[in-house]
Amino acid sequence: MADRLGIIAGGGDLPRQVAETFRRGGEPFFVIALEGQGADAWLTPDLPHAVFRMGAAGAILERLRAEGVTEIVLAGGVRRPSLSDLRPDWYAARFFARLGLKALGDDGLLRAVSALLEEEGFRVVGVQSLIADLLMPSGLLTHAALDEQALVDIAHGLKVAHALGAVDVGQAVVVQGGLVLGVEAIEGTDALITRCGALKREGPGPVLVKRAKPGQDRRLDLPTIGPDTVAACIAAGFAGIATEAGATLFVGRAEAVQAADAAGLFITGVSA
Amino acid sequence: MADRLGIIAGGGDLPRQVAETFRRGGEPFFVIALEGQGADAWLTPDLPHAVFRMGAAGAILERLRAEGVTEIVLAGGVRRPSLSDLRPDWYAARFFARLGLKALGDDGLLRAVSALLEEEGFRVVGVQSLIADLLMPSGLLTHAALDEQALVDIAHGLKVAHALGAVDVGQAVVVQGGLVLGVEAIEGTDALITRCGALKREGPGPVLVKRAKPGQDRRLDLPTIGPDTVAACIAAGFAGIATEAGATLFVGRAEAVQAADAAGLFITGVSA
Repeated sequence: MADRLGIIAGGGDLPRQVAETFRRGGEPFFVIALEGQGADAWLTPDLPHAVFRMGAAGAILERLRAEGVTEIVLAGGVRRPSLSDLRPDWYAARFFARLGLKALGDDGLLRAVSALLEEEGFRVVGVQSLIADLLMPSGLLTHAALDEQALVDIAHGLKVAHALGAVDVGQAVVVQGGLVLGVEAIEGTDALITRCGALKREGPGPVLVKRAKPGQDRRLDLPTIGPDTVAACIAAGFAGIATEAGATLFVGRAEAVQAADAAGLFITGVSA
Repeated sequence: MADRLGIIAGGGDLPRQVAETFRRGGEPFFVIALEGQGADAWLTPDLPHAVFRMGAAGAILERLRAEGVTEIVLAGGVRRPSLSDLRPDWYAARFFARLGLKALGDDGLLRAVSALLEEEGFRVVGVQSLIADLLMPSGLLTHAALDEQALVDIAHGLKVAHALGAVDVGQAVVVQGGLVLGVEAIEGTDALITRCGALKREGPGPVLVKRAKPGQDRRLDLPTIGPDTVAACIAAGFAGIATEAGATLFVGRAEAVQAADAAGLFITGVSA
């Protein structure tokens, strides 16, 4: 039997893109839509799928096996439910009990989920190995270029994001004129951008910097930008966006770069 | 001649408390109110003072000398002006030129200002050496106590705040159930609390954690909580506040603890 891909679908457009790519290529796949995370917005009856609560880990594994899934991609961000919303089944409860009462950031939790899936015999792959042109390339993608202050701000943002990532907190930092305007935790990058737009000073606009966490498993939850990120940065009066080349995802690149060029925003892939 | 204290007054209630303490004790002082930072709200004609733009560094130094000031306290937070609002005089311009186009956090800038004042012959003192009971003590200050999850959240918050402080970004972190809800940059602690109130999950409330930056000069800008912080945490449904004992300030402690006790919030001084 050929490999069948299991798409564990969180929010955003990525899981839809994976399913669409596989559907067009005639390759077998099955979508596990996590309830309340937004996949219901694009799932249609012709796409093989089932909806599960995040807490129903045992039932999810059983279904993946019943559907003949061998390879799994975790695609799209997931909002963490409260413990009471989670309602873990016996399998999920045992998983959490094994983790213990530890302070787990997103990355820690994803690693644990990924390790568990491999223990259960599945192969976990990164979304960038399934969709072409998703990884951020190196260098400038826009007409707008970087001045000296932007270079200084990007270097500083990369340093701060590294320190944050090392304790498994967010992946995004906003810097303007040497000053860190904001740092991302669980509010999400778009909320960070909007907040920093309100906090920004006069002069050249802020720069959004995103990078992978130190030692981040590149198959899991790479920092992502897309047309929404670009639109938020334009609305907030930012000068540009810099993300780590080869270690961040750029969804909907053509559309996003066109919007950036129309607004004079720079977008660049940098090495960290 | 006796020592005369120069109070460089930023925002908040601390500079007023220093001036009031010295006035009551009959000790000589002179207030330099930094324009637009809020000291005009409490300065009265009977308090010896002058108002200066932050950029008027040369004129400030000249006035401090003319008033016979020998000892200086930097009291109260300062919102950074944009470079165009700063309008540096010749002295301030030279100071910034010496710093170069570096990415300076608040701590870096304050250290540079402090070093400059000492170079100019002044002695710089911490506000906690002038007002009694300002330093956060060790241990629980409220009736409400800490459960096991709060202890885990505090330990995690201290770790994240340390990582942030090492790159000279904010001093405050909000943690709930092992999850970092938010991290402070320049928005200020009250804005952080309000934002995290909107992001919080069900279950035991979040904890606000503040600590000094690693290697922070304890005479300068120690992390501060006060009645406003407590009121914001109550309004946002927090479980409690933990700050570093001996290295953070607790302004208006009696009033704040009373409000916390009425609302069931814990406040504790922890060692980091």
